[in-house]
Amino acid sequence: MIKSTIIGLVALLFPISESASMDVHKIKQDGLSALMSEDHTVPVVSLRMVFDGGKRLVPEGKEGVAQLASYLLMEGAGKFDAEAISDQMVELAANISFSAERDGFSVSITSVSDAMLEAVDLALTMLTKPTLAEEDLARTKQQMLASIRRRMNDPQSLAFAALARTAYPNVSQGRGETRGSVEGLTKSDVEAYLKDQVQSAKLLLSMAGDLDQEQARQILARVASALPEGQPMPKKDFHDMSGQGQQVLVSQDVPQSTAVMAVPGLLREDDDFLAAYVMNHILGGGGFSSRLTDEIREKRGLAYSAASFLAPSRETAGLMIYFATRNDAVMDAVQVAKDVVADVAQHGVTEDELRDAKDNLTGSYPLRFDSNGKIAGHLMGLQISNLPMDYHITRNALVEAITGEDIKRVAKKLLGDFDPLLVVSGSPENFAPSQSWDGEQIF
Amino acid sequence: MIKSTIIGLVALLFPISESASMDVHKIKQDGLSALMSEDHTVPVVSLRMVFDGGKRLVPEGKEGVAQLASYLLMEGAGKFDAEAISDQMVELAANISFSAERDGFSVSITSVSDAMLEAVDLALTMLTKPTLAEEDLARTKQQMLASIRRRMNDPQSLAFAALARTAYPNVSQGRGETRGSVEGLTKSDVEAYLKDQVQSAKLLLSMAGDLDQEQARQILARVASALPEGQPMPKKDFHDMSGQGQQVLVSQDVPQSTAVMAVPGLLREDDDFLAAYVMNHILGGGGFSSRLTDEIREKRGLAYSAASFLAPSRETAGLMIYFATRNDAVMDAVQVAKDVVADVAQHGVTEDELRDAKDNLTGSYPLRFDSNGKIAGHLMGLQISNLPMDYHITRNALVEAITGEDIKRVAKKLLGDFDPLLVVSGSPENFAPSQSWDGEQIF
Repeated sequence: MIKSTIIGLVALLFPISESASMDVHKIKQDGLSALMSEDHTVPVVSLRMVFDGGKRLVPEGKEGVAQLASYLLMEGAGKFDAEAISDQMVELAANISFSAERDGFSVSITSVSDAMLEAVDLALTMLTKPTLAEEDLARTKQQMLASIRRRMNDPQSLAFAALARTAYPNVSQGRGETRGSVEGLTKSDVEAYLKDQVQSAKLLLSMAGDLDQEQARQILARVASALPEGQPMPKKDFHDMSGQGQQVLVSQDVPQSTAVMAVPGLLREDDDFLAAYVMNHILGGGGFSSRLTDEIREKRGLAYSAASFLAPSRETAGLMIYFATRNDAVMDAVQVAKDVVADVAQHGVTEDELRDAKDNLTGSYPLRFDSNGKIAGHLMGLQISNLPMDYHITRNALVEAITGEDIKRVAKKLLGDFDPLLVVSGSPENFAPSQSWDGEQIF
Repeated sequence: MIKSTIIGLVALLFPISESASMDVHKIKQDGLSALMSEDHTVPVVSLRMVFDGGKRLVPEGKEGVAQLASYLLMEGAGKFDAEAISDQMVELAANISFSAERDGFSVSITSVSDAMLEAVDLALTMLTKPTLAEEDLARTKQQMLASIRRRMNDPQSLAFAALARTAYPNVSQGRGETRGSVEGLTKSDVEAYLKDQVQSAKLLLSMAGDLDQEQARQILARVASALPEGQPMPKKDFHDMSGQGQQVLVSQDVPQSTAVMAVPGLLREDDDFLAAYVMNHILGGGGFSSRLTDEIREKRGLAYSAASFLAPSRETAGLMIYFATRNDAVMDAVQVAKDVVADVAQHGVTEDELRDAKDNLTGSYPLRFDSNGKIAGHLMGLQISNLPMDYHITRNALVEAITGEDIKRVAKKLLGDFDPLLVVSGSPENFAPSQSWDGEQIF
């Protein structure tokens, strides 16, 4: 404990490294706020806007409308058609993109600093005055249907989609888009979704690169005047995972099956999240050097790789283990994974494993900041996860401060009495499913 | 002329923009030199090494050996197997990659600044002590053969490969890898290639990010002591394009054909290269706003897009125009492209087109510098093209200084008496080939 406190202090004194100098500021204007980091090395700015909501705002039966909206915003707005938007971006040396994510609707802008205000104006026009032409709608729906048909043949997509439907039947996460829902989407569905989503009360902002605080405030003023205020999303809507102990089959005639095991995890704001993160790194998050890879791949050659990850969102939290292996080896690999989990839950991890994990996680942390775009993304992540704006300075000390006892506590909480929901897509041998899906039912 | 001189002066006074501050230095140590740019915002460094030669160093009959070597270097070196290399990279928070390019064999390293020396040592071990295990060789060859089989079904790959074989029959560029050449490659071929390639006399270096000149010199010292000196590549080995006026068919039963038209271009060191670059931007390099797109797509709906590009290498120089269109429209689109070319060759471009092209090219230039990796790549490009190390400061002024007369001169030189080599892959109607290939002959 004394040792880790000293290391923590050192890390605090020399934030990322002695020579690093990333400062983060919070600015406010016209009711909006943003986190920003200035760097004037090259005259380029990256900006992120995330509207809280995303797929959580999609009404039942309208699954796919958030993605459809994100594609259609590129197809025309105000007086611009798709080509004129592309020409405008070339002229401003700017790039604007949209994506519909589980928890938010995200806008990303990169431009030369001189043109940032104009690029923001263009993005706001695209967000608030989309053309939504019927022919673009029809073509984009066809593209989405083609993408769904591809996923119907992909064991990994099938396994994770079946997992979501089983684990979260009453949550947006379990209500992914299907051919039926996409086919039924209309222009007024897209309009209704955008009306609910594009509101300043739902908006988080971050900026990084060659701009000062005055210029950043100008951008906020432009955004505030262009958007309706609307309503913030409800604070919390947490749903437990269902299906613990069930075995779910997605039948597919392929030589290699994909298996996913899922148990409840932790929300990002949980005090133990970082300890769970370090534990997961040792369990199956550390690539070639994790316990799962070691036992499943190295010692037994059962799969090319095996991995685990924490999946926190605004409304759910899971810990997932997955691997792909030949049909006759699936249940052996499942048993090995269960043994690995039981050992970690009972005995925790070794001093050496903890030391290695901390070294890897703290050592690689600066690589998350090597472009303006990545820094803007980090500043957005802070706001989404309610982390302090000096987190890049304190984070490595927090990782260093995690003890073997901390790992043991979260391992027991998450992995003790391990009774996962197990989903296998493929043709696994010796598998007794309690439930079966086929691709037609999932998509 | 007075106007462009004034703009040039302004651009010189305010390099990229008023706030930018990218300084480039040349450092030397132990017979090696490097271009470097310091930026201490985040503790990350990017380094590039390019060994002059690349595919030009591949002996006849051994095509594919440069790529094979680049893949095998990841599979083990010294006491490390592939997994230990991956573990080492995770431990150092470093990424190392190799690629075999037409003109050079390229090494890219990114790491946190504290670990850069160790990452360089690891890369040097991989370069100079590769394991080259027979089982890795066999597996990697199978992957390369699978990739070749995919290209045999892709109209664009077929068209460009047939073009290279027809235009440059006696140059490395025209001798791409085939199933036969790849099948025959042995461990001693890879060893012989690496022996010829990995030599300090052939090496160019660049670095960007959180390191000072003393640290950069340390890196050079490490590299110099690890590599044999060897021989520099011969200065020049220029080959003219063959096949002007020929019509080449690659027969494929597909509804849509790909057409490529090629004429000789300019080497990068030609005084007129930048004028040709601006001209090409207006002809077909500017995306949705080029002459070719306008005439072929906008006015006639003959193809989704049409584009042109300059293709300078160390030993060849070309200007290529290409598009994909339905089989019955190929020859119409070819005629439209010829008309567009004839008009530019005879009349040059308009004042408005030139103004727009300059605005686009100068405005977007800073986006080439928005990460350490991109800056290191730019500094490498300067050395490969023999450009001055303050080129990022002067380049926009050089673009601004190009006049309508300059464009007219290079247009006449490159596009006057336009008699291209035309290659079409697919089943074009009304096409009278002077030569025919099928995929089996090309790959």
